[in-house]
Amino acid sequence: MNKLDSAGHTIHFETQLNPLTEILESGKYSKIFVFADGNTSQFCLPVFQEMLDDFTGFDLIETDPGEENKNIDFCIGIWKTLLDFGADRKCLMINLGGGVVTDLGGFVASTYKRGIDFINIPTTLLSQVDASVGGKTGIDIDNVKNMVGTFTLPKSVFIETKFLKTLPEREMLSGFAEMIKHGLIADKSYYEELKKGNHKEIEAQAIYTSVNIKNDVVTEDPHEKGLRKILNFGHTIGHAVETYSLINDKSPLTHGEAIAIGMVCEGFLSVSNNTLTGDELEDISNYILETYPSYQIKKESFSQLLEFMQSDKKNENGEIMFSLLNSIGSCAFNCRVAEGDILASLNYYNTLAKSPS
Amino acid sequence: MNKLDSAGHTIHFETQLNPLTEILESGKYSKIFVFADGNTSQFCLPVFQEMLDDFTGFDLIETDPGEENKNIDFCIGIWKTLLDFGADRKCLMINLGGGVVTDLGGFVASTYKRGIDFINIPTTLLSQVDASVGGKTGIDIDNVKNMVGTFTLPKSVFIETKFLKTLPEREMLSGFAEMIKHGLIADKSYYEELKKGNHKEIEAQAIYTSVNIKNDVVTEDPHEKGLRKILNFGHTIGHAVETYSLINDKSPLTHGEAIAIGMVCEGFLSVSNNTLTGDELEDISNYILETYPSYQIKKESFSQLLEFMQSDKKNENGEIMFSLLNSIGSCAFNCRVAEGDILASLNYYNTLAKSPS
Ligand SMILES: NC(=O)c1ccc[n+]([C@@H]2O[C@H](COP(=O)([O-])OP(=O)(O)OC[C@H]3O[C@@H](n4cnc5c(N)ncnc54)[C@H](O)[C@@H]3O)[C@@H](O)[C@H]2O)c1
Ligand SMILES: NC(=O)c1ccc[n+]([C@@H]2O[C@H](COP(=O)([O-])OP(=O)(O)OC[C@H]3O[C@@H](n4cnc5c(N)ncnc54)[C@H](O)[C@@H]3O)[C@@H](O)[C@H]2O)c1
Ligand SMILES: [Zn+2]
Ligand SMILES: [Zn+2]
Repeated sequence: MNKLDSAGHTIHFETQLNPLTEILESGKYSKIFVFADGNTSQFCLPVFQEMLDDFTGFDLIETDPGEENKNIDFCIGIWKTLLDFGADRKCLMINLGGGVVTDLGGFVASTYKRGIDFINIPTTLLSQVDASVGGKTGIDIDNVKNMVGTFTLPKSVFIETKFLKTLPEREMLSGFAEMIKHGLIADKSYYEELKKGNHKEIEAQAIYTSVNIKNDVVTEDPHEKGLRKILNFGHTIGHAVETYSLINDKSPLTHGEAIAIGMVCEGFLSVSNNTLTGDELEDISNYILETYPSYQIKKESFSQLLEFMQSDKKNENGEIMFSLLNSIGSCAFNCRVAEGDILASLNYYNTLAKSPS
Repeated sequence: MNKLDSAGHTIHFETQLNPLTEILESGKYSKIFVFADGNTSQFCLPVFQEMLDDFTGFDLIETDPGEENKNIDFCIGIWKTLLDFGADRKCLMINLGGGVVTDLGGFVASTYKRGIDFINIPTTLLSQVDASVGGKTGIDIDNVKNMVGTFTLPKSVFIETKFLKTLPEREMLSGFAEMIKHGLIADKSYYEELKKGNHKEIEAQAIYTSVNIKNDVVTEDPHEKGLRKILNFGHTIGHAVETYSLINDKSPLTHGEAIAIGMVCEGFLSVSNNTLTGDELEDISNYILETYPSYQIKKESFSQLLEFMQSDKKNENGEIMFSLLNSIGSCAFNCRVAEGDILASLNYYNTLAKSPS
């Protein structure tokens, strides 16, 4: 378990960045840039430099933390900074941070002078288990998530659990939702193992399993034509709830918290539409409700949630498409669901979330 | 000579857009967008619709004509327009115009929702013989040409000489310089044929030969690591002269006019540095000087021209790199040239351009 050969590049695990030292010392690159946000430059950059024997041969490009900065203005700023720093086509960009940094940095790198090499070092659990694989880069425009982006693979990815030590617990829990999803859609025994463990102390082995699952799916379907859609389990409803919360709640849900809710709802739909059993649904719901803080999806929001689902990027011809479980460990995609069932699933979540746990 | 299979896509010649009709009628796409500039929507769109039996099943997205509009602001505008029009990932964008339209439209399409299909219909001679092949898309930022872009192939390219009927003569001549270049770097007999013909009446066969030459080069080196650099013959000095003229001249040189000057200068360098003979140089210089209006490169501009050459994207480690002829029909790349020789080559052009012809 120290590397995984993904299509066209390698994902390194817990290597103390040794292979990166080799790359940096090879002299292959005209210049090295490290791209980070305010938090990762404070918490992760020192760890990064320590692992690389106090390496300082790079220019730091820093952005403000947070999804609201994954936008075209920051993107233009970074393109210009690269130009000002004299970046030619043989330079290397190292993205050190969560999904915002790797998505934005990846997009900048994949388009600057028609593409320079980049390496991702994801520092959140979410970005390690999810954004680390699949080559998606992207930025938001006018708050439309990932409206613009590319499919471009980093030269390599380095996953080091050391970086997670400074990650706030709520961010850990956010990434953990994707791990639960990986178990639910593809590997029942992994799901059972996660249930036994503790999301506050994630083992490197579990991250590896998650990455492996996502990698298998993505390798089979790099451009999201079919199979890759199973990774959207929990995300059709989850995204809508996330968007609604972002606009309306004082302290909005994290991505993972919303996806956790989405998995309960879409689990419910899997019982009506697919072959998931009631017992399996109960198992999933119990586990998620005891792991995640409960939330109430407001009745007044239901119609807006449906609208959000309708405008989802993943739809075709305006029809809402779901990825639903056949059983724990197996998922189908392109499932159609009646509007009434969607509403019933939201009510189902609300009822569970209300009851004392 | 009605199609050419380039890496991953087909370039169709003089097909009256018949294969496009098939694509449009296949129902493969959720929506069709035609992207054009003010001139091509006026001159080319009616021709386009006529060839497609008065086809109207598309939304038109129009931009202002001219290189100054190949920028990030227009790019953002088009991304947003696509979103407003409800463009999903299964829509098709048809870029109808010169290199500005195909470069900008190609970049927008290659990044909108991480990439939608696009088809290029180049309507200038330059874009037919040059921008039509190789998959480069791009936009300028702060007047830095093609600072941002991707390598993305259109699904197909349609070359129809019919569109050239409305193209101003000066634009014809601009594209013609690239055809001369193709002869010089790769095909002596093609060069000889061009000399016999008349640039005002370009034969479809000559365009085909040019595209074929560029296609062979690009197929061997899709990401500009080596061989592809021979396409830069005339462009190191030519670009510098073009940039200078754009900033300083009331009526600036076209790209082709500048490249024609560049080919004379770099022909001169090919005699000092490579194995091009003095007779061959004279042949090239005579042909170019009788075809293109003459120009004087101001002595005061020489140092600035050198600076422009130094900051050229194609350089590595700050050294100016040239592609130089071994003979008419053969070209080498990564040639180093002394600064004094560059200045001598500018003087050489000036002397020729001054003498009565
Ligand atoms: N490309 C993909 O395939 C993919 C997959 C999933 C998500 N994403 C994208 O990822 C983004 C979300 O990723 P995220 O949750 O990592 O968000 P994020 O990058 O915003 O990180 C969350 C917060 O944690 C901070 N942080 C990061 N690492 C830290 C560390 N080690 N210690 C302390 N603080 C740290 C960040 O500064 C930020 O404030 C979204 O934009 C989403 O679209 C992309
Ligand atoms: N992608 C590539 O490989 C590649 C190669 C070469 C050049 N380029 C790019 O192409 C651009 C230059 O291309 P261009 O010379 O075609 O410029 P252009 O697109 O600006 O066209 C020149 C002018 O002709 C007008 N026009 C176009 N077709 C017409 C027609 N049929 N009838 C009447 N008017 C017409 C245009 O509106 C414009 O005013 C530059 O931005 C350059 O960087 C790209
Ligand atoms: Zn997710
Ligand atoms: Zn050119």
